Amino acid sequence: MLVVMRHDARAEDIRAVVQAIEAMGYEARPMPGRHRTTVGVVGNEGRVDGTPFSALEGVQDILHVTPPYKLVSREWKADATIVRLPGGLTIGGEEVPVIAGPCSVEGERQLLQAAHAVKEAGATLLRAGAFKPRSSPYSFQGLGRDGLKLLALARRETGLLIVTEAVDPEGVDAVAEAADIVQIGARNMQNYSLLRRAGRAGKPVLLKRGIAATIEELLLAAEYLLAEGNPDVILCERGIRSFDTETRFLLDLGAIPTVHALSHLPIIADPSHGTGRRDLVPAMACAALAAGADGLLVEVHPNPGEARSDGAQSLRPEQFERLMADLRPLAEAVGRRIAEPVGART
Amino acid sequence: MLVVMRHDARAEDIRAVVQAIEAMGYEARPMPGRHRTTVGVVGNEGRVDGTPFSALEGVQDILHVTPPYKLVSREWKADATIVRLPGGLTIGGEEVPVIAGPCSVEGERQLLQAAHAVKEAGATLLRAGAFKPRSSPYSFQGLGRDGLKLLALARRETGLLIVTEAVDPEGVDAVAEAADIVQIGARNMQNYSLLRRAGRAGKPVLLKRGIAATIEELLLAAEYLLAEGNPDVILCERGIRSFDTETRFLLDLGAIPTVHALSHLPIIADPSHGTGRRDLVPAMACAALAAGADGLLVEVHPNPGEARSDGAQSLRPEQFERLMADLRPLAEAVGRRIAEPVGART
Amino acid sequence: MLVVMRHDARAEDIRAVVQAIEAMGYEARPMPGRHRTTVGVVGNEGRVDGTPFSALEGVQDILHVTPPYKLVSREWKADATIVRLPGGLTIGGEEVPVIAGPCSVEGERQLLQAAHAVKEAGATLLRAGAFKPRSSPYSFQGLGRDGLKLLALARRETGLLIVTEAVDPEGVDAVAEAADIVQIGARNMQNYSLLRRAGRAGKPVLLKRGIAATIEELLLAAEYLLAEGNPDVILCERGIRSFDTETRFLLDLGAIPTVHALSHLPIIADPSHGTGRRDLVPAMACAALAAGADGLLVEVHPNPGEARSDGAQSLRPEQFERLMADLRPLAEAVGRRIAEPVGART
Amino acid sequence: MLVVMRHDARAEDIRAVVQAIEAMGYEARPMPGRHRTTVGVVGNEGRVDGTPFSALEGVQDILHVTPPYKLVSREWKADATIVRLPGGLTIGGEEVPVIAGPCSVEGERQLLQAAHAVKEAGATLLRAGAFKPRSSPYSFQGLGRDGLKLLALARRETGLLIVTEAVDPEGVDAVAEAADIVQIGARNMQNYSLLRRAGRAGKPVLLKRGIAATIEELLLAAEYLLAEGNPDVILCERGIRSFDTETRFLLDLGAIPTVHALSHLPIIADPSHGTGRRDLVPAMACAALAAGADGLLVEVHPNPGEARSDGAQSLRPEQFERLMADLRPLAEAVGRRIAEPVGART
Repeated sequence: MLVVMRHDARAEDIRAVVQAIEAMGYEARPMPGRHRTTVGVVGNEGRVDGTPFSALEGVQDILHVTPPYKLVSREWKADATIVRLPGGLTIGGEEVPVIAGPCSVEGERQLLQAAHAVKEAGATLLRAGAFKPRSSPYSFQGLGRDGLKLLALARRETGLLIVTEAVDPEGVDAVAEAADIVQIGARNMQNYSLLRRAGRAGKPVLLKRGIAATIEELLLAAEYLLAEGNPDVILCERGIRSFDTETRFLLDLGAIPTVHALSHLPIIADPSHGTGRRDLVPAMACAALAAGADGLLVEVHPNPGEARSDGAQSLRPEQFERLMADLRPLAEAVGRRIAEPVGART
Repeated sequence: MLVVMRHDARAEDIRAVVQAIEAMGYEARPMPGRHRTTVGVVGNEGRVDGTPFSALEGVQDILHVTPPYKLVSREWKADATIVRLPGGLTIGGEEVPVIAGPCSVEGERQLLQAAHAVKEAGATLLRAGAFKPRSSPYSFQGLGRDGLKLLALARRETGLLIVTEAVDPEGVDAVAEAADIVQIGARNMQNYSLLRRAGRAGKPVLLKRGIAATIEELLLAAEYLLAEGNPDVILCERGIRSFDTETRFLLDLGAIPTVHALSHLPIIADPSHGTGRRDLVPAMACAALAAGADGLLVEVHPNPGEARSDGAQSLRPEQFERLMADLRPLAEAVGRRIAEPVGART
Repeated sequence: MLVVMRHDARAEDIRAVVQAIEAMGYEARPMPGRHRTTVGVVGNEGRVDGTPFSALEGVQDILHVTPPYKLVSREWKADATIVRLPGGLTIGGEEVPVIAGPCSVEGERQLLQAAHAVKEAGATLLRAGAFKPRSSPYSFQGLGRDGLKLLALARRETGLLIVTEAVDPEGVDAVAEAADIVQIGARNMQNYSLLRRAGRAGKPVLLKRGIAATIEELLLAAEYLLAEGNPDVILCERGIRSFDTETRFLLDLGAIPTVHALSHLPIIADPSHGTGRRDLVPAMACAALAAGADGLLVEVHPNPGEARSDGAQSLRPEQFERLMADLRPLAEAVGRRIAEPVGART
Repeated sequence: MLVVMRHDARAEDIRAVVQAIEAMGYEARPMPGRHRTTVGVVGNEGRVDGTPFSALEGVQDILHVTPPYKLVSREWKADATIVRLPGGLTIGGEEVPVIAGPCSVEGERQLLQAAHAVKEAGATLLRAGAFKPRSSPYSFQGLGRDGLKLLALARRETGLLIVTEAVDPEGVDAVAEAADIVQIGARNMQNYSLLRRAGRAGKPVLLKRGIAATIEELLLAAEYLLAEGNPDVILCERGIRSFDTETRFLLDLGAIPTVHALSHLPIIADPSHGTGRRDLVPAMACAALAAGADGLLVEVHPNPGEARSDGAQSLRPEQFERLMADLRPLAEAVGRRIAEPVGART
């Protein structure tokens, strides 16, 4: 940490900063410049809390050198984390699984139709929401526990692994029982009560980036999960808020190599929410794969015109099939391969 | 609602849109243009769900004319909502209460010192967090229920009303028991399980705008509270995320007259979080008042250098006193007045 | 400047950084930490160019302590700059001038009508564009040099001082001849050829902040003007781009006290462009004044429904009159006063 | 266009809107709803100017259905524009040229070294700046006309085509003489005097997206070029401003398929400026290609540590060579191919 003094800071202000650093057990290294003095902090293990300094007289700024997270960082663990799922499926290694399905579980027929369609096209995990956080209280909020039962049924029928979202601490256990991966949605990325409970649920967690979360905040949210003892965390870039309304969100693919540089955790991409427009999904799915995504999450609905949420961004089954066909040679060109259905590997 | 067709939409695509509108019980009004046809929807009560249309063939865009919220809108209730608090204090009327206090409850001595200081300067409500949502799992997370007890003590000792935050559905009742106003923080603005519980807590709710929430999303979050039967909702502009890192957040004061135009709910401003810098708080508090804010939320700490969170943005008691002295004539100049301490009014 | 090394940087990488610093004539202060080494730079006059370091092996980040601008900074000149205009009018001191007028010069009748109206209400400067930069090549682009002539006529007729925009280097001299203040528009804030020419035009310059410019970039653009020898620069906050489309731009009033903290230059606010909506202009004009704005720029059109640009944000004359009446007591409440018409002061 | 009336608009307000529409020669179609009336405009050729309506009484909002640009749109010209360059090189067709070079022309040795290196690796165009727009007046501003001479020399020596930037209208002709493609930089995307001159320069133009420009604004800027008679315009996504400072800019790859959907113009990507970090360039170059980019612009410097600008984002020659090797199979996997050096094709 570096404490930058104002250019008009008095000698006693600088002394107070030095004393505060020493009182915390660190060594202070003042560097007097022509216009201002800066004071370096040496000897700290992990990030120093800058709060007390920012309130001292004559202090202009606090510059941090150490990242605020620990367990999620590459410095803590150099090797990439590979999350292992039932049937031998992995996320974070050479293979790239495609997670697909409708936005919401709407009923048995819709879900099974979707599940069979995405399985045939080559998806390995089924994602559909039983609990739906919606901006409006008047929008469809999901089937709840009945939706979880239908997901369990789809799992038995198709062999697809299940990803579904938990929206509050009370609901985590029921979701963890039905799902192979518990999703934390973008709106809940900083819902810490939920994160703590999910960190103890005994299942891998898919953590979606908040729509205005920095990469540092995403990693800090993941740190909550690891700090509870859950090493199996998969991050997800799903689009952030931008000034351009041409697309619903802006898929920040730069987040993928950036996360890979900072962290050992796998990161997947969601081009469906990331664009909000069906016609842009295939190009952005390909781009995400080329950027190094460890998986893809694609919304597919047997009949998007009847979807109760997010119909505009859902691929039709035949579009998804074409996308899968495009992804396979692309994966090879970047030294990866699209994960094969679990059933197909036994 | 207006369904905009692509310029190459076929006659059958337009017919399908018309039929879908009619199937929902509305009237369709196609307007063929030189380059494209648009289809207006007439006869709807409240906003039409555009989802099914966006998935139809040949549809380019859906334009909404009706806002997605209802109970919070000026169209639903033309008169401004005035939230009435114990002791006759009001928010949303002519008087403008100042809510002040430290970011966190850190201990009895700190809290009482802060409470007495802000009361003497003229604050009418004390705000301090017992439960603190923090970006890092390693930061101070608040004293929890012990903090609530200290807040109750401060209320008895000073007569100040209490504002404090609830961070999960399970915690709402305990917070509602100790507090006069239950705060929903910015990170939880779209935590719908929490909103629903807070809507049934029987106390006014202070709803902070999420750091990347549109005004429409803020109003939709408030709609969750009103839909649960709680009419006493106070909105709060607390700074949004911007591209400039000169200040921690960007206080969007335009949100104040905008909310007043769209909604009958009162809206206050938080210049402390909104800037993150003590030296900017006074100017922005004045600006917020002049923009029409129905209240101000200002962080004050007896000793910011010892604050366990947000010390850099907390005013010292003497700075707060000066600010209060500046606010009074300003309030008069805009036809309002700073609320007097509740004790002083009996 | 502080060079932050990667945690896996080798001793030779650190040596190379130290040597590069010393080769530039500065002193290097390595601070070995547990996880990484940082190297401080001491002895520099002004900001060190970090470019060469960022390209060296093992370097993770460059942290700057010295701002990149000089002449515009408070550290260079502690006292506020007061721009003196004909007739004794000042910007940056106690008095707060209001600049008003239509977006574009559309014709003699419109301009004179607007000029008389704003003068009667108490404006001291007339602003109208003769050259209009427009997003679309098919929009009205201004009357050009004929517009400048009409502005000169309005000046003679009303005694109002003139502010108008120059859009390219060739046009600066003609604008400087007709105007008392040469405006550089938001789109041209980083048009350096234009800035350099405007810096030598011999007239004060009103520099509008770009819609996505940081405050640092705004100050750097002003530095171009001062570096050419022009000390009379007035900055202008006119709204930045945000993710919320409820208003056209987001008026960043925090920029006002922030600029006052960093720079000695005056800064005014433009609530008309800053919101894009007539109904929000009065509240935001008041808020800007309370935030410390050294002037206000307000669009007024005798008949907004006939405006050839920006009609939606132009006040009608009677609305402007009411606003002026509201501003006067507000100015007093914050220790300023609205500048009186130049004619009235002789 | 659709004029949305306020819910409390009076019958006379609606009549005034209808009359205004009819006075413009269009047909008005009022649609009375339960809460508000909307008035559709029918019969317009191209976008209707909404300005006059937004100023009328009782009008709440103007919704546009027709895009504001014409010549650049797919609706105007369905087939993709293929820009043809000397030696048979094309941009916008099946082949994908890679443009590479140092940020600035710094001297003969540096430029030729860079030119030979990028040519050997397979680049087909050399890009380097002779005129450099820089945020600070104290940064290196380029070699100017001497730089253009060195670029001409590099062209003769290597056969690479030249891309270089014009920064003001006066400089366009000199640049157009030396270059095969005239670049308009991001800061000048809305410098209309420059755009108009570049539109008449007789050479293809590479138009970079402004850092806060919407895609619609980018297309409108291109419309200025086409309106001057220049059909050979290449757009370039080079990163936009975001709230996360982890990378310098945010490369918006969604812009690529979005532009392809709206316009017939080719669009390339600049992952160097788009990230600002050398280590992220390869992944983002691959992602851009997979997203459908019609070309790539990559900064390469023979010795980034000695670069006078943007060293942190410049690849070393051997890194660029590796990237080119990665791009070739990737291009094939998406049905394209990396353009071969012009010399190699004769």
